[in-house]
Amino acid sequence: MDTPQRAEADAAFLADFATMSSFGATPDGGVDRQAATGPDIAQRRWFAGLLESRGLRVVYDRIGNQFGLVERVPGAPYVVVGSHMDSQPTAGRYDGAYGVLAGAHAVFRIAEEWRREGAEPRFNLAVVNWFNEEGSRFVPSMMGSAVYTGKMPLETALAVRDRDGVSVAEALAPTGFLGEGGGPEAAFCAEIHIEQGRLLEKAGTPIGLVTASWAARKYEITVHGDQAHSGATVMEDRRDALYGAALLVAYARELADRFPGALHTAVGRLDVYPNSPVVVASRARLLLDLRSADEEVLAAADGLLNERFAEIEQTANVSIERTLSHAWGIDPYQPEGVELARRTAARLGLPADEIMTVAGHDSTNMKGIVPTVMLFVPSVQGVSHNEREYTADEDLLAGLSVLTGVVRDLAEGALADPDH
Amino acid sequence: MDTPQRAEADAAFLADFATMSSFGATPDGGVDRQAATGPDIAQRRWFAGLLESRGLRVVYDRIGNQFGLVERVPGAPYVVVGSHMDSQPTAGRYDGAYGVLAGAHAVFRIAEEWRREGAEPRFNLAVVNWFNEEGSRFVPSMMGSAVYTGKMPLETALAVRDRDGVSVAEALAPTGFLGEGGGPEAAFCAEIHIEQGRLLEKAGTPIGLVTASWAARKYEITVHGDQAHSGATVMEDRRDALYGAALLVAYARELADRFPGALHTAVGRLDVYPNSPVVVASRARLLLDLRSADEEVLAAADGLLNERFAEIEQTANVSIERTLSHAWGIDPYQPEGVELARRTAARLGLPADEIMTVAGHDSTNMKGIVPTVMLFVPSVQGVSHNEREYTADEDLLAGLSVLTGVVRDLAEGALADPDH
Repeated sequence: MDTPQRAEADAAFLADFATMSSFGATPDGGVDRQAATGPDIAQRRWFAGLLESRGLRVVYDRIGNQFGLVERVPGAPYVVVGSHMDSQPTAGRYDGAYGVLAGAHAVFRIAEEWRREGAEPRFNLAVVNWFNEEGSRFVPSMMGSAVYTGKMPLETALAVRDRDGVSVAEALAPTGFLGEGGGPEAAFCAEIHIEQGRLLEKAGTPIGLVTASWAARKYEITVHGDQAHSGATVMEDRRDALYGAALLVAYARELADRFPGALHTAVGRLDVYPNSPVVVASRARLLLDLRSADEEVLAAADGLLNERFAEIEQTANVSIERTLSHAWGIDPYQPEGVELARRTAARLGLPADEIMTVAGHDSTNMKGIVPTVMLFVPSVQGVSHNEREYTADEDLLAGLSVLTGVVRDLAEGALADPDH
Repeated sequence: MDTPQRAEADAAFLADFATMSSFGATPDGGVDRQAATGPDIAQRRWFAGLLESRGLRVVYDRIGNQFGLVERVPGAPYVVVGSHMDSQPTAGRYDGAYGVLAGAHAVFRIAEEWRREGAEPRFNLAVVNWFNEEGSRFVPSMMGSAVYTGKMPLETALAVRDRDGVSVAEALAPTGFLGEGGGPEAAFCAEIHIEQGRLLEKAGTPIGLVTASWAARKYEITVHGDQAHSGATVMEDRRDALYGAALLVAYARELADRFPGALHTAVGRLDVYPNSPVVVASRARLLLDLRSADEEVLAAADGLLNERFAEIEQTANVSIERTLSHAWGIDPYQPEGVELARRTAARLGLPADEIMTVAGHDSTNMKGIVPTVMLFVPSVQGVSHNEREYTADEDLLAGLSVLTGVVRDLAEGALADPDH
């Protein structure tokens, strides 16, 4: 692209991003677009229109992943590029949404160049908006890409219910987003996302080359106590599930303090039953995560946590039922993808640093089946899952240009042909 | 009553109690009849029918308290006897329900005697089923008696909303239970209830003469943090409202341990926002209660708690907003009522011990406006607010006979005339 063309394309991207941010907009500048809720559905309809207006063919797979296809090489597999447009409650505008729109505009730019040049690439292009990456309404997160990559059975995903008892299948059925089949075949994948941390900002670097994801262990925990009158029952007779849960929440933080900087721990969700003002809780359910860039630290922390379970059972006179719902080690992205992204950034004159991702992304699933490139752009003050989430336009556009270069190279066979 | 009559009346009481326990029955032998839900409404309709079949006139006041009237002395005020039929979720069959039905059968017996004897008592009789004593659906508890006694403005009560946003006014409107006016005028009040503790059982005493209610301080607390990604955000940047709340829950228990046997503390309700698997909570709301039979212990514990708030704000990097929603000291029942109940039990040959109530009851509100007698019967193992709540039939019937004697004496002027 020459300079005026480029300025026009960048302005179009920013204008589309502003439109996107109006779906589910909250009064404090964020968005609330939980999976298959009204704003998510409305935004998907708008996005389908945008893709079609640029000549892409829109299709849906059997778990509601939304694809926009450019099939320039009949029958060839696809470079799949995108992220997710669903959000947490009272979330920021950038998480996921930026990656989907950057993927779309990268494809628009490449397809336009190919048309102009009459190019004959090796692979086709597919923009993707993965279904339910956030997992706030339907647990677990990264559901659409998990089904696409075969990590989660379709039936399991469709049967997951939200707190009102509505299943994924029931929520998607009336939207028209439930297609058939497994979606376009991927040859490669690329995703760009905000960092959700402070490293790039601290280093003053606009582009992060993601080399691996942190190791993690995630527990689903139920603390069992016994209902009792919370005023009248003598203290030593109480079997208070909420007290047991509180000791676990507090211990998760203590654990992180024991491994400063090397361990992230969290309890984001806690549900209490019967949760009445004058009843000792009989049940508390919570999700407890441990994450680390160091597998030895993770193992040590996990050992301490498991010792603590028994102590808490005794202290609070409760029983604790736990399931290790997810566990993974340090999981690298393909090094040849990291190198491809490094070369692209250098060609564009953009500084780039290697970085690991603490959060899971759809690309974390995709790298298990095809070579996958993951890029980050800076998050101001590391704020994310928050209405104040912010990334400067300049960084959004720099990321878009690197992503465009990476996707073009992938589609033209940069990693398909060892001699390239 | 002679022996066969008494056996028949006792059998009728137990039969009616079995019928009552079928409304909102749970699979594990308990009940779920939260205020103005389907089972509560159905049970009230059944109860109105029972009262009318025994010749009582059923009326409702402006907050949905249900009364059954025996007006033998035109224009005279009433001895109001009863309790509440609403329950906690997955609760026991005895809490409240026993007191309403015992009140009804006491009135049936006395009215029948009066008819037979052509008696001319001093006061009329009113059975009462107070609205929303439990406060699980609509906070606070003891709502119906609080409005009746003027402790809570009617408009405040009618505007309270449940978690689905339904107000008390909206919930009651279609039931036909919203009457006009303040209900029958009370001259005296009596209530019988299960103890919800172990003291009577340990002492082997069937009747508790309640002398006073424990002192209490109840806080409504909101912990304010900031939403963040619960994986990616570095630990020292987190302002985790759930962590702050967990420290409070744990500290409430530690406080009770510092005053063994003398202090009851509880957090029964905790709501987390946004309560999503991968989001650091920005807000946690909880209700924290302190109760003691010793006002000095309560003041000391309250002082310690207030010091701890500041420490937790620092440790968890949160801010804590608290409202002292209820505070009362040791609050005696009228001693002449306790003496009246003691004489009645002695006359019936039933052992009786003085006891304090830790839990609040509708009679706690009523004793603020008229002389009030409160009786307890034993709770097996002190279990309450639990489907395993149990009181033996023999104890239910002993309680009913003492209550009948107390109500008859009150109605015949035992405490109205100093020379009686």
